[in-house]
Amino acid sequence: MGEFELISHYFAAASCAQAGEGVALGIGDDCALLELPVAEQLAISTDTLVAGVHFPHSPDPFLLGQRALGVSVSDLAAMGATPVGFTLALTLPSAEPDWLQAFARGLDDMAQRCAIRLIGGDTTRGPLSLTLTVFGRVPAGMALTRKGAQVGDLLCVGGELGDAAGALPLVLGQQPAESAAAEVLLARYWSPVPQLELGQALRGKATAALDISDGLLADCGHIAAASGVGLVIEQAQVPLSAALLAIAGEPLALQCALSGGDDYRLAFTLPAQYLAELQQASLPVRVIGRVVAGQGVSLLDVQGRPVQPPCSGYQHFGSARD
Amino acid sequence: MGEFELISHYFAAASCAQAGEGVALGIGDDCALLELPVAEQLAISTDTLVAGVHFPHSPDPFLLGQRALGVSVSDLAAMGATPVGFTLALTLPSAEPDWLQAFARGLDDMAQRCAIRLIGGDTTRGPLSLTLTVFGRVPAGMALTRKGAQVGDLLCVGGELGDAAGALPLVLGQQPAESAAAEVLLARYWSPVPQLELGQALRGKATAALDISDGLLADCGHIAAASGVGLVIEQAQVPLSAALLAIAGEPLALQCALSGGDDYRLAFTLPAQYLAELQQASLPVRVIGRVVAGQGVSLLDVQGRPVQPPCSGYQHFGSARD
Repeated sequence: MGEFELISHYFAAASCAQAGEGVALGIGDDCALLELPVAEQLAISTDTLVAGVHFPHSPDPFLLGQRALGVSVSDLAAMGATPVGFTLALTLPSAEPDWLQAFARGLDDMAQRCAIRLIGGDTTRGPLSLTLTVFGRVPAGMALTRKGAQVGDLLCVGGELGDAAGALPLVLGQQPAESAAAEVLLARYWSPVPQLELGQALRGKATAALDISDGLLADCGHIAAASGVGLVIEQAQVPLSAALLAIAGEPLALQCALSGGDDYRLAFTLPAQYLAELQQASLPVRVIGRVVAGQGVSLLDVQGRPVQPPCSGYQHFGSARD
Repeated sequence: MGEFELISHYFAAASCAQAGEGVALGIGDDCALLELPVAEQLAISTDTLVAGVHFPHSPDPFLLGQRALGVSVSDLAAMGATPVGFTLALTLPSAEPDWLQAFARGLDDMAQRCAIRLIGGDTTRGPLSLTLTVFGRVPAGMALTRKGAQVGDLLCVGGELGDAAGALPLVLGQQPAESAAAEVLLARYWSPVPQLELGQALRGKATAALDISDGLLADCGHIAAASGVGLVIEQAQVPLSAALLAIAGEPLALQCALSGGDDYRLAFTLPAQYLAELQQASLPVRVIGRVVAGQGVSLLDVQGRPVQPPCSGYQHFGSARD
């Protein structure tokens, strides 16, 4: 089966019909064509996942499809964008129908949850890896960036952190994965649901935002550097799930939350005046600290004393985690 | 050196300044932001190149950078689009400064030629491969697609074919590469210059178009299928370069042109009324056949008799060429 047949056969569900909001031309030509409403901008992000580096060799293909798209769309959530479409560059050692079918189902499952459409792609032979490029629309000038945090703003996150990092020993088969708590963590690793509703609600309110992929401390460092401010995190306010505490115990759970990465939850700075409104709208907003004059990220214990942070977040090159 | 430092350090030239036509936000945040003029559409294409499949292991990094971007932008040319920006997902076994510097120079060289800017990307560790996603703009409804060829149209190509396929034995070191003719072929393989000017000139004139990547016969088959017509190619009209004839001899040169692939020249169907105008504008338009009722692609000899085509074009899976 040739490249075009392969894509159109297995990825028909995720690519839906030829027409759709913002998509003038989908899969099957040299390019896809997108339309953009007047006064909107197109947000674009590219992510690569490599077998053995970003996920285990021989992963469950359904879960891989879910995770790959969830991770990518999370960047759209971080900008406050509304998903439109994505391209998939899939490199595979061989084209096995069962594998492709399950992968496409996982991809489609996440595409439905995010209301995003497959608009193009490329399939090539080689060591297993995936590159997804996602597209979203956002009113001009309203995108959330990392730059803009103001001294006095609250520092917030979109919910409990560290679950995906806590799942790693389960994912790698180093620890039994049969308890209910283990299932919660595994689901958070394999099916990260982008916080699209939260990101869109933060437009015009949050002064800076990103999604946590490299670990809370490392990513807060990006906001601090881009905004030219310091960030203070109260360690006791970092939200930890019951599942993570049950599996990892408290010291390790906190370390997962601070430095683990793979959370794909939003971190953002927010003028205090907006807090009540967002919480009343049942959005998952947890205050963990504040923006101060200065630079870098400081961690405080319950008594307000500085704590030495555990080892820093994930970096693709030179990382200990592969 | 971390991911962000790596990108910003080596790819600064290709990404230029933060601002630029159509680029509201470049590298460094969760997403890039593009703007689109009113009444224009955004053309998007994704291509992956894998070491050992699409180019030799251990390629010259400068040439690889040139080729990867040229191949990708060729899809914009095929739609009649004007380049705006591109993302680069680069997977490398290790981050070697010399390699990255030369690769970035090659990428930048082609970016300058195509007037396109690097707007985002991802660097990961793994077996060498690249995925580029390119963005261009085109007036709404004016993009050239594969669908629309009309019976009676001329079938044209944008110049001599087969050079890149003829270069393969040189690229793979199976044949000495020291003659002037060899240099011409190698340049056509490593530095395919997208036919952007031709593609834009064909807007509103060509009824169907694509860029030849899988071989003339295979790609003409795509136009025939999408348009619901037949295409007839006069074998004697297929343009062959002096360099290819010198290196490969006539029968093999023709086979390279018909089935070799990697040409990245445009093939298109054109109402005859536009031919003189395009040729007077010094655009490289070569008539090789015509559109007929029916289906598929037929090849005719000098006497107008059907010829059995040589083996078909390149397919990524199941191809003999890796």
